[in-house]
Amino acid sequence: MMVVSQDTTAGSRPTPIGATGSGAVPQALARVKAFIEPRLDHALHLSADASPRLLESMRYALLAPGKRLRPALVLWAAEACLPGAAAGSSPQAWATAAGAAVAVEMIHAYSLVHDDLPAMDDDDLRRGRPTCHRAFDEATAILCGDALQALAFETLVGNLPAAVAARGCRVLAQASGAEALVGGQSDDLAAERGWFDQSEAPAGRDAQVAWMERIHRRKTGALFRAALTLGGLATGADDRQLAALDGYGRAFGLAFQIADDILDAEGSEATTGKRVGKDAERGKLTYPTVLGLSESRRRAESLAAEAVSMLSDLPSSADDLRHLASWIVTRDH
Amino acid sequence: MMVVSQDTTAGSRPTPIGATGSGAVPQALARVKAFIEPRLDHALHLSADASPRLLESMRYALLAPGKRLRPALVLWAAEACLPGAAAGSSPQAWATAAGAAVAVEMIHAYSLVHDDLPAMDDDDLRRGRPTCHRAFDEATAILCGDALQALAFETLVGNLPAAVAARGCRVLAQASGAEALVGGQSDDLAAERGWFDQSEAPAGRDAQVAWMERIHRRKTGALFRAALTLGGLATGADDRQLAALDGYGRAFGLAFQIADDILDAEGSEATTGKRVGKDAERGKLTYPTVLGLSESRRRAESLAAEAVSMLSDLPSSADDLRHLASWIVTRDH
Repeated sequence: MMVVSQDTTAGSRPTPIGATGSGAVPQALARVKAFIEPRLDHALHLSADASPRLLESMRYALLAPGKRLRPALVLWAAEACLPGAAAGSSPQAWATAAGAAVAVEMIHAYSLVHDDLPAMDDDDLRRGRPTCHRAFDEATAILCGDALQALAFETLVGNLPAAVAARGCRVLAQASGAEALVGGQSDDLAAERGWFDQSEAPAGRDAQVAWMERIHRRKTGALFRAALTLGGLATGADDRQLAALDGYGRAFGLAFQIADDILDAEGSEATTGKRVGKDAERGKLTYPTVLGLSESRRRAESLAAEAVSMLSDLPSSADDLRHLASWIVTRDH
Repeated sequence: MMVVSQDTTAGSRPTPIGATGSGAVPQALARVKAFIEPRLDHALHLSADASPRLLESMRYALLAPGKRLRPALVLWAAEACLPGAAAGSSPQAWATAAGAAVAVEMIHAYSLVHDDLPAMDDDDLRRGRPTCHRAFDEATAILCGDALQALAFETLVGNLPAAVAARGCRVLAQASGAEALVGGQSDDLAAERGWFDQSEAPAGRDAQVAWMERIHRRKTGALFRAALTLGGLATGADDRQLAALDGYGRAFGLAFQIADDILDAEGSEATTGKRVGKDAERGKLTYPTVLGLSESRRRAESLAAEAVSMLSDLPSSADDLRHLASWIVTRDH
């Protein structure tokens, strides 16, 4: 019997990051899309007990055009932690983590549907198409989000190895809840609408940056980190690997948010598919309005480098994650 | 070492149900309230990352006055399936199932908050108090529901024995999702608002009854059944016991709904704490409008008897469930 070490690539050198590496990110994301979108579709093949109009709205929201960044984080974290996996598409790692990737995208999709509601951000356009409550109606959009959240947990636990399903469920629930995604959104709205005591409003640059970080860490960062953790858990990551992924996720999430603010400040509606300059219109705190564009860019790049450095102990199968961090702060949409 | 059989009551005769038995239900429910309400409160002791306004709304919604019927089903199903447990309050059964009981009540509370929203049923009053969006605002009520749903899954898996946590999560997610709670609510709204093809509208008494059953089985019945299953799973119920609980839950859920429709038709605002005659006002299909009051009462009583008969193989520790079924169709609020 031939014994094959499961750990052959654990000591291999990560690929250096440069123009070639990060230029490959759109192609790598395209592979993720091709893998995950049929699975998103399949996850919505529900029984006749699902209300037809509701199901149509769930398809509309979940299958909307998107980068599938969160599924990519799940799948790439899974391949980064599966001994012997190669970067780019490890069939075994991806298959094991597919349910978690679908679940995280469902949470993301539901949060967008609810955020767009008239009582929330009141947006008519999302990813270049009418928002869910414009394409359907407000009640259906509320229920669509509710049902996608429930389906996320059902999909997650039904598709993770049993030994980690309960832990994975806790990770996803925490990232989605009052202390993370929903809490960040709530504080963000409270600030926009002046619901809190004005003495609590952040004054001065440092306090404003700290305030933004506290919002974004919960509103967008927590789900990125959960995606990475779930990917790692799916392929049996140990505590050291999970800590590396989490460190990456913290820095990556903030880099992503700063880059997003920069795009909003300077982007065009045609490229981003949403109304731009919206933040400035609303007088909302953003990195460019607080720090200026060039300091914002500098911070985003520094955070991207920090994210990459967190993965120093992971093998070359973590290269997709490394390239992604560099790409996220240079993309134009 | 003294060996105590864990199965001493398994063959004991169930207590006959009569005026005395069902008269004890309010006291039994009071014991459930005393047990569960501090635990609901405790489950909302979140970190400082939880948005203060959001957390306040979650407390308002979850700790609102209520019968705690769903937690009772969880706890009583748990004691019905724990070998050697006695009816009334088995500390071991209740402790094991407490997290599941809290989780089910969170799902119930979130669904009420969302159902009351202006875009949904547009109710100002719930359990005699302003609804969540009236006490706070619409955005907070949407987020409150979202956060309670996430917290339900977090609480469930963090407090069930690991071996059944993943299965329990799937049970709760299915009961909460597009094929059950949310799907039933969506079809109910669609009917009220004439969103479906009028040729699909049920014509004739039998079709109307079948239609109502299809709605209620999902909108209210599924969560009752999940409560019972979760209670059983918590204390290690076998397939036969789970089937008995599920059969009880099917009949109980429908009996509950018919009784609720009857209360709405004849109740007074002071007793039920919500506007009555609302169903009739809206021209909504209900059991009394379709079947008349006396036939509705007959059906509710027959279903309650059916529910009790499903428990024939369970020991006397299932008596609280037996009494509840009789009580639910005779209560006046």
